[in-house]
Amino acid sequence: MRTPGTTQPSSVDASIPSTLRADVAVIGGGVVGHGIAWEVQRSGRSVVLIDDAPGSGASWAAAGMLAPVSELHYQEEDLLELMLEASSRWPAFAAAVADASGTDSGYLTTPTLAVGADAADRRALMDLRTVQQASGLSVEPLTVREARKREPLLSPAIACALDTPGDHQVDPRRLVAALRLALAGGARETHHLAVAGAVDGYAVPERASGLLWEDGIVTGARLAGGGTVLAAETVVANGLQAGALADLPHGLELPLRPVHGDILRLAVPGHLQPLVTATVRGLVHGVPVYIVPRRDGTVVIGATQREDALSDAVSAGGVYQLLRDAQALVPAVAELELLECTARARPGTPDNAPLLGRVPVDLALRSEGSATEAGYVPGLIIATGFFRHGVLLTPAAAAICTDLLDGKADPRWVPFRPGRFSGPGTATHGLHDNGTHTKETA
Amino acid sequence: MRTPGTTQPSSVDASIPSTLRADVAVIGGGVVGHGIAWEVQRSGRSVVLIDDAPGSGASWAAAGMLAPVSELHYQEEDLLELMLEASSRWPAFAAAVADASGTDSGYLTTPTLAVGADAADRRALMDLRTVQQASGLSVEPLTVREARKREPLLSPAIACALDTPGDHQVDPRRLVAALRLALAGGARETHHLAVAGAVDGYAVPERASGLLWEDGIVTGARLAGGGTVLAAETVVANGLQAGALADLPHGLELPLRPVHGDILRLAVPGHLQPLVTATVRGLVHGVPVYIVPRRDGTVVIGATQREDALSDAVSAGGVYQLLRDAQALVPAVAELELLECTARARPGTPDNAPLLGRVPVDLALRSEGSATEAGYVPGLIIATGFFRHGVLLTPAAAAICTDLLDGKADPRWVPFRPGRFSGPGTATHGLHDNGTHTKETA
Repeated sequence: MRTPGTTQPSSVDASIPSTLRADVAVIGGGVVGHGIAWEVQRSGRSVVLIDDAPGSGASWAAAGMLAPVSELHYQEEDLLELMLEASSRWPAFAAAVADASGTDSGYLTTPTLAVGADAADRRALMDLRTVQQASGLSVEPLTVREARKREPLLSPAIACALDTPGDHQVDPRRLVAALRLALAGGARETHHLAVAGAVDGYAVPERASGLLWEDGIVTGARLAGGGTVLAAETVVANGLQAGALADLPHGLELPLRPVHGDILRLAVPGHLQPLVTATVRGLVHGVPVYIVPRRDGTVVIGATQREDALSDAVSAGGVYQLLRDAQALVPAVAELELLECTARARPGTPDNAPLLGRVPVDLALRSEGSATEAGYVPGLIIATGFFRHGVLLTPAAAAICTDLLDGKADPRWVPFRPGRFSGPGTATHGLHDNGTHTKETA
Repeated sequence: MRTPGTTQPSSVDASIPSTLRADVAVIGGGVVGHGIAWEVQRSGRSVVLIDDAPGSGASWAAAGMLAPVSELHYQEEDLLELMLEASSRWPAFAAAVADASGTDSGYLTTPTLAVGADAADRRALMDLRTVQQASGLSVEPLTVREARKREPLLSPAIACALDTPGDHQVDPRRLVAALRLALAGGARETHHLAVAGAVDGYAVPERASGLLWEDGIVTGARLAGGGTVLAAETVVANGLQAGALADLPHGLELPLRPVHGDILRLAVPGHLQPLVTATVRGLVHGVPVYIVPRRDGTVVIGATQREDALSDAVSAGGVYQLLRDAQALVPAVAELELLECTARARPGTPDNAPLLGRVPVDLALRSEGSATEAGYVPGLIIATGFFRHGVLLTPAAAAICTDLLDGKADPRWVPFRPGRFSGPGTATHGLHDNGTHTKETA
């Protein structure tokens, strides 16, 4: 068994101790889980991250567009506010990750070009621009000539192009790798741990099977292999798997559904470098497609959203559609080398917004226990359901979680309360029942 | 160093002896090289197969269609005769491989359906049928209704379908694996080896760098790692790499060019099983595409022929074209799971026919030596340039090679003599200078 608190914690360790202690346990090692864990560590707490295959879920297939402007949808103003909050945090977050990890986090401030293939696509993008402008966002139409001056390989047949300078990108695979390094490095520098005998920055290479409870308080996580992680606070950040955890608060509905996406990674031959300098987000006969240029000369093409039964299987039809539509915008895509086709499921929710926050205690009347207090379930934070926006929202989700740990709750994020889909009692936890509750177990 | 002739030869051995002896050395471990090596072994000779990555070249991306009828092209009558010869050998060859290896060689007598997408494709297929019939081949038109009765997932929009019952298939990856087992197993049963101290069935996991010569006779192969394989006869069967061998006969031109092909492997979900029961060979607006159903429920889709610079890289445009055209014939292809995209280069020749046979000695006036005798270069057989037909032609190529080893040469195969592209002297090695030469170094 590992002796907690001695020697430096390893980021991956084949021999898992049967019991670990930390201030905070984070269940789930995607971009969001890693971002939260690192921010928690930066706040001076010890943290343990639990995942048997870190970075291999939705994060593995994410394009990493940081695109609050392009991702704006009608009647999703609450989400827009969260996306803009996250976007404003990205430069400092990326710089801090790069600094702490000593590696490139893959963050790039390349601009985004919204491109429409036909007249209907143009109308749709111009209509969206009206909403974007009403929200104070900068989206400027270019002539096709101007667009092709900036991106010579754009098809001359496109119907429109709009400059969206505020939408940037990060490489999610690099980001997870950098956050892992930062976590492990941060652990060596952490001096004051609230929990006696705690470890920090330890990544448990195991699946969490459920929550641990004691007297109505969540006290950590059970591991599939039989061990436990004891923590004053547990963050559920394992995406689609969140709903499969045992011993979630009674009555808590986490209506997560898999929304599959196919993504392609392609190499650009030397004579076509750079294929594009901006991220190209297209609408091709009503179907979205994007082409994201990476620093290493590859491009990522994606945008399928399938709610079919193929799970992590790559859809032949999806790959076909991506190649077809990407070629409509940039014909030279046909000359690229196809390196990789990957598919993953993103955790969708009924309102496309995350499940982020604490759980009201009146949903927590578990059969074997009883709620101890009014307010929120002590020791538990939910952070899942990020759908298409997990990478973009990570710095905001991480900040919101550390705020909650500090007993602070920002009323702007009440619309994302994780109990909002939970049964008849839900309505009683509306806006009036907002984040003025303080945390019970700091 | 390995002691030749003792213990059982291993099919892969990390420690390569510096000198190996066998009756025959086969350079190249694709389907053709393996087929030749096994046939050589069955003829009572010991054999060593040389390849640092067996089965990973063009064979890895081959669909394995055994389709002399469908592959008939205008004015390739010589090749047709070779293809029909090979086709007639396949049932016994496959049965013998299965018997010797104890495994499934992936040979299936599934029929082939030729399908045209539009009226022009129909005309092209019907024109081809006239030629096929003139060659005595059986190709019968079906109504679209009849075709869809047999293959319900065929698009109702197809323009024509022709039944080609004589075109079958084999799984090249299984075949190579089975031939390796057969070779290793055969070695244990070989009793009479012509070369003293010979090994048999030994697969050298190394690249051959060139030929060995002594007094105008090819005496084996040099290995890239420094060792040698000494053999009374050496067969050059390493596809596109053949031209890169050092010390080929002086003046011998092997005009091989890479013709790349992309191939897709897809899984068929249960509710779509079987996607097709026959191999579907389509012509879609003039572009060929095929869908080959495997016994394991997967399908292989292929047919691109690219002479571009992408080498073994998968072409995005090629994958797009395959998915587009396969969907035109069988729309449900869109619902399949894309398991694999692979590309390999096939060894093309100026006349699309193989380079198969012995090399005339008057091309062999090498700078450091002199030809010893009239006739053919002793100890050397060339077997490359099989282009699209390597898998189909394997049993014929293997039989032709063992005939040559026995001093027999069939005049039918003179058109494939490997020296036919070699300089001004070529014309003097026409049909009159045929296989009546006997081998010099039996």
